[in-house]
Amino acid sequence: MNLASPLLTDLYQLTMLQGYFDREMHAEAVFEFFVRRMPEQRNFLMAAGLEQALEYLETLRFSAEDIAALEELGMFSPAFLRWLEKLRFTGTVEAMREGNVFFADEPILRVIAPLPQAQLVESRLVNILHFQTLIASKAARCVLAAGGRQLVDFGMRRAHGSEAALLAARASFVAGFSGTATVLAKPLFGIPIFGTMAHSFIEAHDSEVEAFEHFMHSHTGPIVLLIDTYDTEIGARRVAEIAQRLRQPAIHSVRLDSGDLLSLAKNVRGILDSAGLTGIRIFASGGIDELEIERLVGNGAPIDGFGIGTSLDVSEDCPALDCVYKLQEYAGRPRRKRSTGKATWPGRKQVFRRHCSSGRFDGDCIALASENLPGQPLLKTVMRNGARLDRPESLPSARQHARDELERLPAYLRTLGQADTYQVDVTGVLRRLARDVDAEFH
Amino acid sequence: MNLASPLLTDLYQLTMLQGYFDREMHAEAVFEFFVRRMPEQRNFLMAAGLEQALEYLETLRFSAEDIAALEELGMFSPAFLRWLEKLRFTGTVEAMREGNVFFADEPILRVIAPLPQAQLVESRLVNILHFQTLIASKAARCVLAAGGRQLVDFGMRRAHGSEAALLAARASFVAGFSGTATVLAKPLFGIPIFGTMAHSFIEAHDSEVEAFEHFMHSHTGPIVLLIDTYDTEIGARRVAEIAQRLRQPAIHSVRLDSGDLLSLAKNVRGILDSAGLTGIRIFASGGIDELEIERLVGNGAPIDGFGIGTSLDVSEDCPALDCVYKLQEYAGRPRRKRSTGKATWPGRKQVFRRHCSSGRFDGDCIALASENLPGQPLLKTVMRNGARLDRPESLPSARQHARDELERLPAYLRTLGQADTYQVDVTGVLRRLARDVDAEFH
Repeated sequence: MNLASPLLTDLYQLTMLQGYFDREMHAEAVFEFFVRRMPEQRNFLMAAGLEQALEYLETLRFSAEDIAALEELGMFSPAFLRWLEKLRFTGTVEAMREGNVFFADEPILRVIAPLPQAQLVESRLVNILHFQTLIASKAARCVLAAGGRQLVDFGMRRAHGSEAALLAARASFVAGFSGTATVLAKPLFGIPIFGTMAHSFIEAHDSEVEAFEHFMHSHTGPIVLLIDTYDTEIGARRVAEIAQRLRQPAIHSVRLDSGDLLSLAKNVRGILDSAGLTGIRIFASGGIDELEIERLVGNGAPIDGFGIGTSLDVSEDCPALDCVYKLQEYAGRPRRKRSTGKATWPGRKQVFRRHCSSGRFDGDCIALASENLPGQPLLKTVMRNGARLDRPESLPSARQHARDELERLPAYLRTLGQADTYQVDVTGVLRRLARDVDAEFH
Repeated sequence: MNLASPLLTDLYQLTMLQGYFDREMHAEAVFEFFVRRMPEQRNFLMAAGLEQALEYLETLRFSAEDIAALEELGMFSPAFLRWLEKLRFTGTVEAMREGNVFFADEPILRVIAPLPQAQLVESRLVNILHFQTLIASKAARCVLAAGGRQLVDFGMRRAHGSEAALLAARASFVAGFSGTATVLAKPLFGIPIFGTMAHSFIEAHDSEVEAFEHFMHSHTGPIVLLIDTYDTEIGARRVAEIAQRLRQPAIHSVRLDSGDLLSLAKNVRGILDSAGLTGIRIFASGGIDELEIERLVGNGAPIDGFGIGTSLDVSEDCPALDCVYKLQEYAGRPRRKRSTGKATWPGRKQVFRRHCSSGRFDGDCIALASENLPGQPLLKTVMRNGARLDRPESLPSARQHARDELERLPAYLRTLGQADTYQVDVTGVLRRLARDVDAEFH
């Protein structure tokens, strides 16, 4: 499957393009990507996916095979298809950095380009920005709950397909995870990878002890032994016995994957400590989300790290954001949709963020980009004439930015429960513009 | 991104493989894929994704680039990597057909292969089967609710990445959708594609009437006009006026995408009918799921078709299934995991389904494959020695099977609310085997 084909789009983008082409509607259009409503389950969102969005725009082109597939549909004129074959993205992109915290109605990316280009890219741009932003926003909650304990993405198998698995590893790493179990994320993104053993490894041996000894014999790096296949506490005693007998220092940790993790972790810690194995760490996995991390940490579970799978990779409590990519200006005139419950703010906008003296966020203001307001403007130009202005931001740099952002979150937004709404104002200039646009278009 | 790389797996698969390689544990292993628990939101599940699973197994191989990436990790022995380079899948696969209805604990796919092969493929096989089964199961509920009305997948933009978008189009088509808006699904899978226009098309024009006329001028096929950008009922009157003025027969339908769809559809129908335009159909979209379809259809909304987006493509009310791929036999001896709350049935199993005289399902029985029970056995051999026994099943054939399955569903399982549990028995032979395995392994 050539997933990078520009045919990964909605059919209406192409039928609209044929319409724009026929009427020569190539004037400059401005579209913005934003989340319409905060999900109940989130107190803030974290932007991610800009790198893949820019890659997509830079490499956008219709291959001969793509054009042939469109020809076969019998819906498009030959002149239009010849024009499509030459189409490249030549526009400007302004965006927030990956790892940036943001809220409803705040644009995190703006595309300024001839109308057909800016229109065509809608479906895939939303697809790219939505997913990584969704996962980074979920992962950031796990990071807040874990209070510095190690977090590893274990979710590949139940992520929604291959790309979701890889981009979930990337987005959670940006948000502060230590790494992932997904091997391909290492050569692709340079993300640290972690692995242990599965229950099937234990079960394929005639006894658990034999399986542990065999695994330790085959591996030289830090060993993680899975101890819950038959009985977690018996498993812990077996590990203690082996470690003492073999004087094996390479057992880095034991992994618990089922049962009541709070009491099991305490009992396992006791068994290991009694055997003098205070250095062996406890790693927990199995249906864990940020609420469970908070419960375990809050109750003093002696757990040093967590593997987070399904709840992270599908953002289980909130598997989609109400995000859109909307036309805000065409041919120099601001525009907006005002469908019931879905009205948007017209024009090119900037988000200005104020900070307290402590560095914490103190309120945002959405304004026209031409306004000059106090606070830090969050959108910067990252692409012009279809070319990036800078080299791609490195993942460690985006990750550091995310860490800084989480430190600057007001205390009340750090809770996992529903918090008071963060203050986001809209300037009077923008409100007046919306009224003017409504009077003009109908 | 080469998403087809076998490095799209969990690291522990490879560390376990190194262990199996070192000990020459190449005896035959049997793994089964099944869903452990029915989600509260589903009364039945629908199998999908077998075709992609078999494709994955047939083409599994480590490229020189993959081996180099593993070498760089410094975790694997040179002998193991040389062996990995030659690894191919040479096993047997037994599976249910795509479109088959199934329930908790029923294996839908079994892999019989040398232990390292059967182990390695776990992560990606689960990733493939989980997602399409998840989507087909959700889509089947929409099909039941729609009572024959047209359903189109509109979810690409909020699907979790590119592969999810394409496979959601495929799985929902199997379950009975008419098609998708995702263009690439046509050349890839031969799925019919549908398209209308976006609000931005309307907004880019100086008036809604101009936008409608322009679109109709540019397109020869069946036209769908989006009428909710400014005011849905005014939009409908404009369509009526244009249709009467131009005597334009090509307006196939109008699309409503916001507001109270029930009252709007009735009013729009009235406006069109008063103008003698009884042939123009009404298509609805915008945050619709199967419960909303049921409400609209139940209240007599004159809607002829639905576009289903986010709720379908992320299976919003249930974004993951509790599915697993578990070792059930190794070297001729049945095995099982018995971790708290996660115990499995050992051995190679078959599902026998009984039918009433009406053809409806009358209860299933999970048995050892060697048992001979009344009813239809649901798993068949589809691959042997790594090669398919038959040509891939065509999508229309799988879709017809899904339709037949939905017709055979007992009435009480067709409700969208939580129904009584369908009867799934486990034979005494299988229960005794589980006890015997527990006595043997610990």
